[in-house]
Amino acid sequence: MIKKLINEIKKKNAPIVVGLDPTLAMLPSHLMPKADVSGEDYLEAVGAAIFEFNKAIVDATADLIPAVKPQIAMYEQFGIPGLIAFKNTVDYAHSKGLIVIGDIKRGDIGSTSAAYASAHLGAVDAGGRTVAPFDEDFATVNPYLGTDGIKPFVDVCKSHDKAIFVLVKTSNPSSGEFQDQNLGSTGKPLYEYVGEMVEKWGSDTMEGDYSNVGAVVGATYPEMGKRLRELMPHTYILVPGYGAQGGTGADLKYFFNKDGLGAIVNSSRGIIAAYKNDKYKDRFSEENFADASRAAVEDMLSDIRENI
Amino acid sequence: MIKKLINEIKKKNAPIVVGLDPTLAMLPSHLMPKADVSGEDYLEAVGAAIFEFNKAIVDATADLIPAVKPQIAMYEQFGIPGLIAFKNTVDYAHSKGLIVIGDIKRGDIGSTSAAYASAHLGAVDAGGRTVAPFDEDFATVNPYLGTDGIKPFVDVCKSHDKAIFVLVKTSNPSSGEFQDQNLGSTGKPLYEYVGEMVEKWGSDTMEGDYSNVGAVVGATYPEMGKRLRELMPHTYILVPGYGAQGGTGADLKYFFNKDGLGAIVNSSRGIIAAYKNDKYKDRFSEENFADASRAAVEDMLSDIRENI
Repeated sequence: MIKKLINEIKKKNAPIVVGLDPTLAMLPSHLMPKADVSGEDYLEAVGAAIFEFNKAIVDATADLIPAVKPQIAMYEQFGIPGLIAFKNTVDYAHSKGLIVIGDIKRGDIGSTSAAYASAHLGAVDAGGRTVAPFDEDFATVNPYLGTDGIKPFVDVCKSHDKAIFVLVKTSNPSSGEFQDQNLGSTGKPLYEYVGEMVEKWGSDTMEGDYSNVGAVVGATYPEMGKRLRELMPHTYILVPGYGAQGGTGADLKYFFNKDGLGAIVNSSRGIIAAYKNDKYKDRFSEENFADASRAAVEDMLSDIRENI
Repeated sequence: MIKKLINEIKKKNAPIVVGLDPTLAMLPSHLMPKADVSGEDYLEAVGAAIFEFNKAIVDATADLIPAVKPQIAMYEQFGIPGLIAFKNTVDYAHSKGLIVIGDIKRGDIGSTSAAYASAHLGAVDAGGRTVAPFDEDFATVNPYLGTDGIKPFVDVCKSHDKAIFVLVKTSNPSSGEFQDQNLGSTGKPLYEYVGEMVEKWGSDTMEGDYSNVGAVVGATYPEMGKRLRELMPHTYILVPGYGAQGGTGADLKYFFNKDGLGAIVNSSRGIIAAYKNDKYKDRFSEENFADASRAAVEDMLSDIRENI
């Protein structure tokens, strides 16, 4: 799968991914749920509205980008209808040739991680019938439980040609509380040790120069990104935190290898809610929100191409 | 919420929780999905079968236990119909007076954790209508992202009278890889530092002697449980790993405080698949699987009451 992602990145000259993390507050008024707020089918209408929003953004940007990254929490908060919208979004992005990174941050003990891996990347034997429930291409995974929580995901990557990004150094302000702790055994911070383990977990999933076990490293910590880039030469890095969270184009150069590859940068709000942003709101009406998203993708691509 | 859990534990003299983690292989033949394996409604039938299995176990054990703990991964692996079975299980357990611990192990950056917290413990404003999508009473939470990933859950605990258990030292074999790393700053292992943070996060959510921010500590590491019990005097401990994973009754005494409280022990397979176990299979037919689960609960209670 990592090879497929790299091919798409090269073809479109676009090491970026659009985060499909919609909220109701982002929806333009013509897409707001079309149902009585007190009716039984209201939540279904919310799910349908979110899916329509995503579809328009996918349609407006699919030729420019290799991948989308729906954040499942934004769908899970609307319950079953929200999760149906998540699944419809995965399928629609696939139908437009996009790779789907499921931002799910799952992770558990071995047998339970195996169930999550089947749910999101692989397939499950449902009593004589094999079903691939959500069928994303990549998933993000939490490493806190160690190797036996990661291995079921790696196994499914091998059996189903999928890939993962393991949380190493996250983009949020308090990520350092645990991740930056220096370990007595080596004097190195925890995130470096996790990074070394990511490189190791990926070692028998190589496709060309990169493995199918990637890492999440926030754009908001460029110096740590630089160090992790060195420590994990075969690891693709998913970089959140660009744009709305404060990461800039100049911060990104450290995350890439000399081959111009090795990283894919996410922007969510900065793209999907671009029409609400001062930079775009004079040029694009609410009805043309998806065109604003396209313009924001083009601006992000310029910024990144200049800096790497 | 922790006070409600403690009251139920005292009333039933039962510091245990039954893990509702069904697999299709556990279902007795008369409950297997009633639909053509190649038909469109087959996965719905799988979800319905799992829910019937859970219902029978809840019916057979509800008077003996304070709580159930469905592991969402086991439902997520069957996609949308599986998640409907999860939600139906939460609601059915509530209708029988049980507290529901959603074993979801979510955790993300602040804004995303807020969405998970709303999804599972709180409610979301869906465009003028407030909806509580899954509405468990407790949720398990992963701490790797630090305070800003935990705080939205703590906020929802306060606003909606709910509670959480944060992963501190998990029951699986490789949990030590990161969790046991000694930190250079203090010489203490990471799990102790996380435990101290759990005690701190809970400090303004106290109800009586305990807070609404609990911890997950595996029965498989009793010595570490002992140390964590001392470090976190106001923290309730959810103890997985008893039974099928190898933890014994004798291992459990360290997890309790002198008041006989402070811990709740989970068993999943050992209870819900008891009818397949050598210990019970001669006494209970496949049709009476739920009675075997009841017997297994009674045996677990005897074992724990002897040891704490």
